[in-house]
Amino acid sequence: MSLNVIKIGGNVIDNDAELLSFLRDFANLKGPKILVHGGGKIATKMARDLGVETKMVEGRRVTSKEMLDVAVMVYAGLINKRIVARLQALGCNAIGMSGADGACITSVRRPVKTVDYGEVGDVIGVNGDNLLKLVNAGFTPVICAITADPKGNLLNTNADTVATEVAKKLSHLTATSLTFCFELDGVLADINDTDSIISLIDSSNVVALKEQGILSGGMLPKIDNALNAVTSSRLESVTIKNSRRLSDNSGTVITK
Amino acid sequence: MSLNVIKIGGNVIDNDAELLSFLRDFANLKGPKILVHGGGKIATKMARDLGVETKMVEGRRVTSKEMLDVAVMVYAGLINKRIVARLQALGCNAIGMSGADGACITSVRRPVKTVDYGEVGDVIGVNGDNLLKLVNAGFTPVICAITADPKGNLLNTNADTVATEVAKKLSHLTATSLTFCFELDGVLADINDTDSIISLIDSSNVVALKEQGILSGGMLPKIDNALNAVTSSRLESVTIKNSRRLSDNSGTVITK
Repeated sequence: MSLNVIKIGGNVIDNDAELLSFLRDFANLKGPKILVHGGGKIATKMARDLGVETKMVEGRRVTSKEMLDVAVMVYAGLINKRIVARLQALGCNAIGMSGADGACITSVRRPVKTVDYGEVGDVIGVNGDNLLKLVNAGFTPVICAITADPKGNLLNTNADTVATEVAKKLSHLTATSLTFCFELDGVLADINDTDSIISLIDSSNVVALKEQGILSGGMLPKIDNALNAVTSSRLESVTIKNSRRLSDNSGTVITK
Repeated sequence: MSLNVIKIGGNVIDNDAELLSFLRDFANLKGPKILVHGGGKIATKMARDLGVETKMVEGRRVTSKEMLDVAVMVYAGLINKRIVARLQALGCNAIGMSGADGACITSVRRPVKTVDYGEVGDVIGVNGDNLLKLVNAGFTPVICAITADPKGNLLNTNADTVATEVAKKLSHLTATSLTFCFELDGVLADINDTDSIISLIDSSNVVALKEQGILSGGMLPKIDNALNAVTSSRLESVTIKNSRRLSDNSGTVITK
C-alpha cells in the first residue's frame, strides 16, 4: 500500500465541524500516511489581537519577525497540537512536527531580489530517512509549514510546497502519492456543473484542457505544480479532491 | 549507557545566552537522552499582550481556556520549536513533542475538590513504548508540558511532573536516570557556602538532613519527589544540578 501524503488548508482548519469530520476520515484511512496542514484564519486573528500588522511590499505579503512568531505559535502550537490530540483520540498514532523536528524540512531564507519577503523559507531539503523512520515505526506525521534553516532559524513556508517536496522526496524511498484537499470536488470541465469532474489529467490531455480554457485562473498553477511534481519524481499521482470526500475515489488525478 | 531525562526550567529558557550555552552542552552529551522543558516568562508576557488575565482562586493559579491556548502556543510552539531548531543546528537529532504527540503523556483534567484549577492535567499514563521507539530510532525527544486527555483535549501540566513520570515509566523499559537543572549547584549544606554541596542523598541520610534543617523550604518537596521517584520505580538516580554544569559530575544525586 503506497504512502499517502495529504494536505489540508484553511477551509478545513477554520471550521471545527469540518475539521473533526475530516480527521475522522483521515484516521480511518488504511495504510501509511502523512498529514500536512496550512494555517487558516487563526494566525491572522492572533496577529491582530497582538497588534502585529500585516506588512505588504509591492503588493506582496511580507513575514516580519513578529509575524513569524505568531505563525510558529499558531501553526506549530495551537493548530498542530489540536489536530494531533484529536487524531490520537480517534486511534491514529499521530506525531506533530514542524520542518525543524527531525530536520525533516530544511529551508533557506528567500533571497532578496526586488522584494524582501522577510522570514520566509524556500525548501532546500527533505530528510526522507527521518520521516520514513517515523512512518515505519507506526507513527503518522502531522506536519505544519514552519521550517528551519541549517543555522536553526525558523522560517515560514508555503504548505502546498511543503506537502509537494515531502511527497517528492519520499517517492524515491517508497511508493508515494499526494492528495490536495480543498473545497471543490476536483477540476471541473464546466465550472457551473459540479458533476463535470475531469477524473484524469496527464500529458495526453493537459494541452487541450489549457487551450479550451478549462484549466485557468487559480487552478492553472495547481495543475502545473502537480504535473511538475509527478514528472520530476517517482510520485505515483497527485489527486485534487474535496476534503469532505477523502475516503472515496472522487477527485481529479494528475499523472505523468 | 543509561537514558538520561533532563529537565530545564524558566531560568534557562528566559535567558537566550544561557539557553544556547545549555543546548550546546546538551547536544554534546553522549548517549540516549530526552529533554523536558518548562515555560518561562514568555507565556506570561504573551498572555498580557493578548489581554488574557491570570486567574487566581483561593490563592491558586487557575488555567482558563484562553490561558491554555497561550500555553499551547508558547510551550508547544515558540519555545519547543526554537529549542528543536537550535539542537538540530548543533547536530542533535531533536524532535519536539507535547504529551499529545505519540500519545506519550496522557492526563485527566484535575478533579474539582475545593478549587477548580481549570485546564490543568494530572498525568495518568506515559507511552514508554512510543518514546523508546523514537529514542531507538536515533531521535532526541524534546518534550513540553502540554498533555492531552483520552478524548483529545489539551491540558496544561507541571513540567517537573512530566519529567518525573516520563523517567519513571522509561526506567521499567531501559536503564534511566533523571536530572533537574536549575540555578544552584545542588543541595547546599550551608546556604551561604556554594562549595558545601551535598553530593549524595539517600535513605541513610535524608532524615538527618531534614532534622538539621538543611532540607527545608522550596528544596524539601523537590527532594521528597525525587526520593519518591527512585523508590517507586527502577530509576537509577535523580540529580539536581546547575544548568550551567550539565557536562560535569557536579550536583546532588538522590538514590534509594
